[in-house]
Amino acid sequence: MYRMNSDYTEGCVEQVLKKLVETNMDQTNGYGEDEYCDEAKALIKKTFACEDALVQFLIGGTQANFTLICASLRPHQAVIATNLAHIATHEAGAIEHTGHKVLEQPTSDGKLTAAQIEAAYQKYVTDPARPHWAQPKMVYISQPTETGSLYSKKELNDLYAVCQEHDLYLYIDGARLAYAFGSDENDLAVEDLAKTCDAFYAGGTKCGLLFGEAMVIINDKLKEDFFSIAKASGGILAKGRLLGVQFGEIFKDGLYFAIGKKACTQAKRIREAVLARGLELVTYTSTNQIFIKMSKEQFEKLSSEFALSHSGYLPDGSYSIRICTSWATKDEEVEKIINMIKEL
Amino acid sequence: MYRMNSDYTEGCVEQVLKKLVETNMDQTNGYGEDEYCDEAKALIKKTFACEDALVQFLIGGTQANFTLICASLRPHQAVIATNLAHIATHEAGAIEHTGHKVLEQPTSDGKLTAAQIEAAYQKYVTDPARPHWAQPKMVYISQPTETGSLYSKKELNDLYAVCQEHDLYLYIDGARLAYAFGSDENDLAVEDLAKTCDAFYAGGTKCGLLFGEAMVIINDKLKEDFFSIAKASGGILAKGRLLGVQFGEIFKDGLYFAIGKKACTQAKRIREAVLARGLELVTYTSTNQIFIKMSKEQFEKLSSEFALSHSGYLPDGSYSIRICTSWATKDEEVEKIINMIKEL
Amino acid sequence: MYRMNSDYTEGCVEQVLKKLVETNMDQTNGYGEDEYCDEAKALIKKTFACEDALVQFLIGGTQANFTLICASLRPHQAVIATNLAHIATHEAGAIEHTGHKVLEQPTSDGKLTAAQIEAAYQKYVTDPARPHWAQPKMVYISQPTETGSLYSKKELNDLYAVCQEHDLYLYIDGARLAYAFGSDENDLAVEDLAKTCDAFYAGGTKCGLLFGEAMVIINDKLKEDFFSIAKASGGILAKGRLLGVQFGEIFKDGLYFAIGKKACTQAKRIREAVLARGLELVTYTSTNQIFIKMSKEQFEKLSSEFALSHSGYLPDGSYSIRICTSWATKDEEVEKIINMIKEL
Amino acid sequence: MYRMNSDYTEGCVEQVLKKLVETNMDQTNGYGEDEYCDEAKALIKKTFACEDALVQFLIGGTQANFTLICASLRPHQAVIATNLAHIATHEAGAIEHTGHKVLEQPTSDGKLTAAQIEAAYQKYVTDPARPHWAQPKMVYISQPTETGSLYSKKELNDLYAVCQEHDLYLYIDGARLAYAFGSDENDLAVEDLAKTCDAFYAGGTKCGLLFGEAMVIINDKLKEDFFSIAKASGGILAKGRLLGVQFGEIFKDGLYFAIGKKACTQAKRIREAVLARGLELVTYTSTNQIFIKMSKEQFEKLSSEFALSHSGYLPDGSYSIRICTSWATKDEEVEKIINMIKEL
Repeated sequence: MYRMNSDYTEGCVEQVLKKLVETNMDQTNGYGEDEYCDEAKALIKKTFACEDALVQFLIGGTQANFTLICASLRPHQAVIATNLAHIATHEAGAIEHTGHKVLEQPTSDGKLTAAQIEAAYQKYVTDPARPHWAQPKMVYISQPTETGSLYSKKELNDLYAVCQEHDLYLYIDGARLAYAFGSDENDLAVEDLAKTCDAFYAGGTKCGLLFGEAMVIINDKLKEDFFSIAKASGGILAKGRLLGVQFGEIFKDGLYFAIGKKACTQAKRIREAVLARGLELVTYTSTNQIFIKMSKEQFEKLSSEFALSHSGYLPDGSYSIRICTSWATKDEEVEKIINMIKEL
Repeated sequence: MYRMNSDYTEGCVEQVLKKLVETNMDQTNGYGEDEYCDEAKALIKKTFACEDALVQFLIGGTQANFTLICASLRPHQAVIATNLAHIATHEAGAIEHTGHKVLEQPTSDGKLTAAQIEAAYQKYVTDPARPHWAQPKMVYISQPTETGSLYSKKELNDLYAVCQEHDLYLYIDGARLAYAFGSDENDLAVEDLAKTCDAFYAGGTKCGLLFGEAMVIINDKLKEDFFSIAKASGGILAKGRLLGVQFGEIFKDGLYFAIGKKACTQAKRIREAVLARGLELVTYTSTNQIFIKMSKEQFEKLSSEFALSHSGYLPDGSYSIRICTSWATKDEEVEKIINMIKEL
Repeated sequence: MYRMNSDYTEGCVEQVLKKLVETNMDQTNGYGEDEYCDEAKALIKKTFACEDALVQFLIGGTQANFTLICASLRPHQAVIATNLAHIATHEAGAIEHTGHKVLEQPTSDGKLTAAQIEAAYQKYVTDPARPHWAQPKMVYISQPTETGSLYSKKELNDLYAVCQEHDLYLYIDGARLAYAFGSDENDLAVEDLAKTCDAFYAGGTKCGLLFGEAMVIINDKLKEDFFSIAKASGGILAKGRLLGVQFGEIFKDGLYFAIGKKACTQAKRIREAVLARGLELVTYTSTNQIFIKMSKEQFEKLSSEFALSHSGYLPDGSYSIRICTSWATKDEEVEKIINMIKEL
Repeated sequence: MYRMNSDYTEGCVEQVLKKLVETNMDQTNGYGEDEYCDEAKALIKKTFACEDALVQFLIGGTQANFTLICASLRPHQAVIATNLAHIATHEAGAIEHTGHKVLEQPTSDGKLTAAQIEAAYQKYVTDPARPHWAQPKMVYISQPTETGSLYSKKELNDLYAVCQEHDLYLYIDGARLAYAFGSDENDLAVEDLAKTCDAFYAGGTKCGLLFGEAMVIINDKLKEDFFSIAKASGGILAKGRLLGVQFGEIFKDGLYFAIGKKACTQAKRIREAVLARGLELVTYTSTNQIFIKMSKEQFEKLSSEFALSHSGYLPDGSYSIRICTSWATKDEEVEKIINMIKEL
């Protein structure tokens, strides 16, 4: 039995594990005040070409999102996102728990458009009763999106342009960021990401680490006392060096991007087999997730050997099935599932 | 220049004002611990045939809503409402400010349906990742709705039945409750309202008082320490007897319902004039609000004598104009606007 | 039976009531967008010599406090106050409900000292684990204090100096502000109050109005979108003109200060009778509250004719009894209680 | 240079690391729905003799505290704790951030007494203005305390008795629980802990794991939907099995208690050397922390070889220095510091 139901079914990449073992008995200060963290932060800032950014390691994705959002907004302010956004769905209302409304915009491919931001902003700003509404102040997107799609460089620039025009912050959830840069359809240079937003995080949990997310804050207005707000939000790890050790390894020599590339390549092989077999994609993706329309029988057949994610029903009653590759997906698994797909 | 742009353009009905003047120098205890409040609460419980209810006077509508909701829900729980609900629109994100998500359901006539509740509940309860979602636990409706429509007795019973089946609380915002019972299309007995919900409030601000809302909590689970939560929410008036005095007067001898009836009758006269003139209604109403499709010119012509509310643009670019009557609307105003409508 | 147990046992001063009656059927816009509010705000700014201030009318004191505090602070920030401060005692945890810690400082006379602020700030700023603590960012005081004492001009200037030195906001709760200026020991000019703080409110509820508080924000940093945050906090009155009408009357021709003066004079007469009788004060006051040490028997004797407030037990088991005068206290009441005190 | 400044300077115990390495490429479900978690939970329930408890693994201590507290309390409720409690000090206001007041009680030895709880409860319950106060509903203690002291079995039973009498929840923060049971002065059986409280957590971060805390909820009232509230609070690890693997190892064959014992023994050796040298303890401890009164010179001398924690100044200007042992403290370190202490 194999698992392709998510990208967090294994532990961490070999190099990271090795380094954790090697450094296990080292003595360091707590809470990220150690050399491993210093070096990893420097490496991340260099990688993303944002020397003046503030980097803060956090533990998980939901936490990264609500901490950044609640640190950035005043009590009456809200965040624009798609209705499929992680903050609108699988965070158990965490953003509202910190006091802020998510202004959900409809999407079919997981992406938000600059036109939607413009419309949401105009709806607010032109309303004579404007002070009676929650105020849009931040835009949240994921790269790649929750449904595996990818923003192009132009799309990101357009999103950021409309945000800057209206004094909205743009925040990018990079839970699967390695798989964005790993897509063969990606046209954004790594060094350009920080130029298209006010803050983003480079995900570790889904991209090769045991756990951990690297929040990168570009906009000075969002930096002040971020550590304290993260502390009050439960996001600061006592043995903070564990995050420094992990991120230091995964960003060394381009490993983060290499594992992303590999996972996307494995996903592409499966996607091509799906299409070759004549199955339909529920939504187009070029990253590490594939959403396939299947009959109940097809799903059950595959399920005899693979744990997959049944992510919903389609209008005609058939299934939407997610297959997920990751840094850990082995060739034998890919070959096995391709062979099974051929015979569906 | 007259105002028909809202139902809170004047002070309070004559009897209420008279009683406030008469009792002005009376000395009483604060915070609602006085005889005026005791009597008014008893009168309200008798009126709505709910002797075991807890009645708590609050100051305003937004406050009434977020206090009841935050007192009722645990941190991960959410409230189902339409996308036009007051809590989803003109409360500046007050519900989220207390930590809870509003699960917005689309509506065109302002009403929520039992089928929508069922669907929202099923979406949650059948999701394998259910514990990762905000949990629907309360349903919020307004009677009449924000767009002036009215739930029938059957509709209310159906809503409450689905709520009870799934252990959801049903809460009714009665900001304009007098105008619900005043509609000639209303088929719900006053004594039946408390049987169709877990809590409701009878609005004073829009229904004849200077200010004030009477929260009526039927379900025992929602009663405990409600005063303290209202206090922490800024909802307790120091000179609480002002609410007792006002509610005592307005519920005496059916005055609340008489003023509601009168406002609906005035609205009906205007509505009929609108239809006679050949204008279209944006949405059908039988209460004290009328939404009319007008050209810019028609709106401006009426605006020379009446302050009205321009509540939005219709798909063809024409205006949606709200005319609002109230307990205070005088015959001369109604005649005046009818004459102007005839000549639009 | 008379009531001297609080300063909110009656309605409002005659002139205010008269104006409310006169303007009752006027039609105005809602939410404070009316001429009465405009005029009252201008009058208040002129009175306190702060033409650039933002004035926002709110409904009650607890609400005024938590709204200003939550609008001013970021998530990890805290407010310094005495352990007898209203925000630390009789607000049911309202400040914490908005997410902020109250850093309580011990007091015996109700006053906070500049030295206490300095010490609390130094404790924070010199702690190597500083980012792990709630950050003091605002100082809350009441003028007069909850126990009736009064800050001198020098004390206020000293408090503000230490606040400005450490970039802390100073906020003054003026629930009984009329009685501060009414004390014959007050040495602060009305025009100087706004120069000693970042924000204050002039209380109406306890100072002659039916209800209402006038928040006056001096510091530009605290002004932005204050209306929206007040709206989300339930502090905006629909019939906002009621606050404009009331504050417009009470600040006309120095009425606010005249009623304050009168109440303090009445309190002084009673205080002198208390001392003449040989009773002890629990704490010294020169405003409208008197705290007297009494035996159970003395308290019960007075209670036969007066409702008074039993505010606690003293170490030797005797009672601390509060007598409260107000704008409404009549000469006959004062004479009556003085005669009874003589015979205790 | 050695570190004895905290008990989280190293990674994790050898057996835990070994198991993490062995299981690294195992594929499991996320969020704790895996066999490692199931087994570890069963082991913990067996160890603490509470088969009906709900066990939920969380990531860190601050998070464990605020999640349990906010899941347990209604909006107006507060938690009683000492002024040295972790929730009152080093959590950056996290409890208030979730909306709840910490009712701080003075302590010199870090312990709360049953008498203090009784007094705080009586103060609330006998106040005529009770509904205007934050309501005490939970008691928070740490075992061992933040200053290294230990509750006896009788003390815990007394605390729980007063809590049960007044319907207050008792919650025990066991961040250093291994070191409580490791003290040679401990008289509480492991199987009795769950009988003295409504919930506790067994700390992993400071007791041999990389990170992680095991929340054990005994009282049924506090169990419902705890996972969802933890999710909304950022406390759920995606690769949840990492917590199962770690707790499964540390609770196997009494390892948790063995490492606690060892650390306490090391601390005892140092404490005895301190006393033999004629130095004073700041506060008496029998667990893994020692607080010693030192001159500046003595501290600096020790600091040449050991990183220690300067936890404050004593009234006479001398230093309070914390020495902390842990599961990782080696004999050579202990011998080294003892030799240095002899020569201070």
